[in-house]
Amino acid sequence: MPLLVMKFGGTSVADLARIKNAAEKVKKEVERGYDVIVIVSAMSGKTNELVGWVEQTSPLFDAREYDAVVASGENVTAGLMALTLQEMDVPARSWQGWQVPINTTSAHSSARFMDIPRANIDAKFAEGFKVAVVAGFQGVSAEGRVTTLGRGGSDTTAVAFAAAFDAERCDIYTDVDGIYTTDPRISSKARKLEKIAFEEMLELASLGAKVLQTRSVELAMRYNVRLRVLSSFEDTDENSGTLVCAEDDIMESKVVSGVAFSRDEAKITLFTIEDRPGVASGIFGPLADAGINVDMIVQNISEKDYDEAHPGAVTDMTFSCPINQVPRAKKALEEAQAAGLVKYDELIIDEDVAKVSVVGIGMRSHAGVAAKMFKALSVDGINIKVIATSEIKISVLIDRRYMELAVQALHDAFELEKA
Amino acid sequence: MPLLVMKFGGTSVADLARIKNAAEKVKKEVERGYDVIVIVSAMSGKTNELVGWVEQTSPLFDAREYDAVVASGENVTAGLMALTLQEMDVPARSWQGWQVPINTTSAHSSARFMDIPRANIDAKFAEGFKVAVVAGFQGVSAEGRVTTLGRGGSDTTAVAFAAAFDAERCDIYTDVDGIYTTDPRISSKARKLEKIAFEEMLELASLGAKVLQTRSVELAMRYNVRLRVLSSFEDTDENSGTLVCAEDDIMESKVVSGVAFSRDEAKITLFTIEDRPGVASGIFGPLADAGINVDMIVQNISEKDYDEAHPGAVTDMTFSCPINQVPRAKKALEEAQAAGLVKYDELIIDEDVAKVSVVGIGMRSHAGVAAKMFKALSVDGINIKVIATSEIKISVLIDRRYMELAVQALHDAFELEKA
Repeated sequence: MPLLVMKFGGTSVADLARIKNAAEKVKKEVERGYDVIVIVSAMSGKTNELVGWVEQTSPLFDAREYDAVVASGENVTAGLMALTLQEMDVPARSWQGWQVPINTTSAHSSARFMDIPRANIDAKFAEGFKVAVVAGFQGVSAEGRVTTLGRGGSDTTAVAFAAAFDAERCDIYTDVDGIYTTDPRISSKARKLEKIAFEEMLELASLGAKVLQTRSVELAMRYNVRLRVLSSFEDTDENSGTLVCAEDDIMESKVVSGVAFSRDEAKITLFTIEDRPGVASGIFGPLADAGINVDMIVQNISEKDYDEAHPGAVTDMTFSCPINQVPRAKKALEEAQAAGLVKYDELIIDEDVAKVSVVGIGMRSHAGVAAKMFKALSVDGINIKVIATSEIKISVLIDRRYMELAVQALHDAFELEKA
Repeated sequence: MPLLVMKFGGTSVADLARIKNAAEKVKKEVERGYDVIVIVSAMSGKTNELVGWVEQTSPLFDAREYDAVVASGENVTAGLMALTLQEMDVPARSWQGWQVPINTTSAHSSARFMDIPRANIDAKFAEGFKVAVVAGFQGVSAEGRVTTLGRGGSDTTAVAFAAAFDAERCDIYTDVDGIYTTDPRISSKARKLEKIAFEEMLELASLGAKVLQTRSVELAMRYNVRLRVLSSFEDTDENSGTLVCAEDDIMESKVVSGVAFSRDEAKITLFTIEDRPGVASGIFGPLADAGINVDMIVQNISEKDYDEAHPGAVTDMTFSCPINQVPRAKKALEEAQAAGLVKYDELIIDEDVAKVSVVGIGMRSHAGVAAKMFKALSVDGINIKVIATSEIKISVLIDRRYMELAVQALHDAFELEKA
């Protein structure tokens, strides 16, 4: 029997009416001949309520107890979903993490999958059950304690089950109807993508198009699980949404697939640092220790003698990070300077920048993408402050007030409105 | 190490402040040198919310899914209680039913204990944990599904753990500070009992003094678990509350320990039924099938010939049941008459009665209790409609409007205000 994994997030199971709506989608797939594994999140708001109780009780909480408390939200949804399906005459039962069992590491609150044995669920399918409703986001450690995977873990649960059960596809139902070439609120020309490669999705997700948990996409890529993102709130069929899949499954990909952006960036420049081995680690070591998510890093080659106080070659170093981490980053750098780990003359912070990126696997085999991007920006008079590139992405930092304009200009330049 | 079981009901863990208050009581016992097993209910209101969702989803729900959903409330409290204790530097961890494991039958929603192996929890005590916080009301079936014991099951969980772990005592913390000779709202002379025998507690509980779940008292009696009922909301010490214990532990017991009552009773009389073997079962069989909780049953001996339509001896039969079951009882009897299972001339329903009972194990060895009771009632001009007796209880049905007066008169007559 072919098997599908279907995952419903918190807003898709927010109340009994929405659970019913989700169950109807499951029933449709059963009627098409699939065995289905449904992965459910907690009803929206419930996880926050539980987390709030834990944090109020114990600010430095025991993560094992945190997990025991917080995982209960998914158990409730799983039971209610199973009951809803039974009411529709679909043979279904709920599964808590320890019942499957979903074996994970003991890293509570950020556990990783070890193993998902198929035997128990397969036995129930063999008995005539058509649907296994699995509580997402949770597992069980070797010590027999409840574990959780961290926020967004239900997406990862879905992909892990799809891999373990050789699912034909893993459908992620959410409150958007797919992945777009860019945010439709910024460009009215944004177009829904029919397919997107894992690598592109990873770049888009980490850049702010937060539809799928990054970790779930990584896992899908590793096990080649075909992921589909589609809407819980619309009628959907086998062509709905966006398929996230291996590059090979995408016949003709465009050079650029999407334009991503991140509004709340800051740019920090350290002027006049020594240009010698070990300087970069003297800067980014303390930043990592302080938990700063450093994103783009640019170092200019600028070899010239400076003055007696600063002999030898000197250079400047620029990096970007989320704007709300600036105070912590500044403190970490000042402390590193005081401790003699790094020397700089001046620390310049620019909190008025945004990042805009073009992403596409086609870029690998096409020259001129960067040139086209920079030209499109210059035509609109947008100054580029920092540039960083990867194999399938080109990112620039620009003045925040030009962000929307830049996204629109790039969307037009690469003709993303055309299928 | 001596061990205590402490149970906190829903109102005692209704919010984080109350959980903290309960945890302080646990800490005190740990400081006195006890290992403690804490049994917790769901935060008050939570179980009702979950039950409501299940019933709305599926009126004839799958009890396995009902249990999976509803048991999650206790898991939340168990985790929060463990965290609260840890914050107070008391080494504690939470236990869900399947982790202990609390092995039960597969009778979902009304499961019974099979076995509570000590090994897992004992191993943690040996490691230095001082408190095991166990989610009440739940267990796990041989099939590995979550089970629940039915409402009030947390009391039963507490007693079962006390029996399994040879606890010195099982303290039930609740919203009253003990068992009284009668309801203080009805008689201002009501006095808190220091001790009460299991048998007396059973009679009082089933008669409306609903502090302890009947089943938990039965279990405590079978395994001779010393139960203490005391208040969550007051400072308590080793002498607080009321001890429910074996008769042997009560040195000098009074003839009558308490006056119980039940306001919402109805009396149903079947006039002119045949007086022959099989008639009673012809009446009470259909009532049992209809789920009627028949309480007192009185049949008068009245042998006389009646008329040709009703040859042989005839009699009348009276029984009492909760007033809200009267319509169902009436329907069941009329259907039984129509089906020829029972014959009666007339069905008289009196919905204006209440039951008042005196309870005491001393009654067994003392004559004259009934006479004293009837005299006290007659002095106040209260007419007795039905009398029923057991070894340690005498109950009467009277006009409802005299109920308070009767309770006060009996409390005075047996001098229950005196210790």
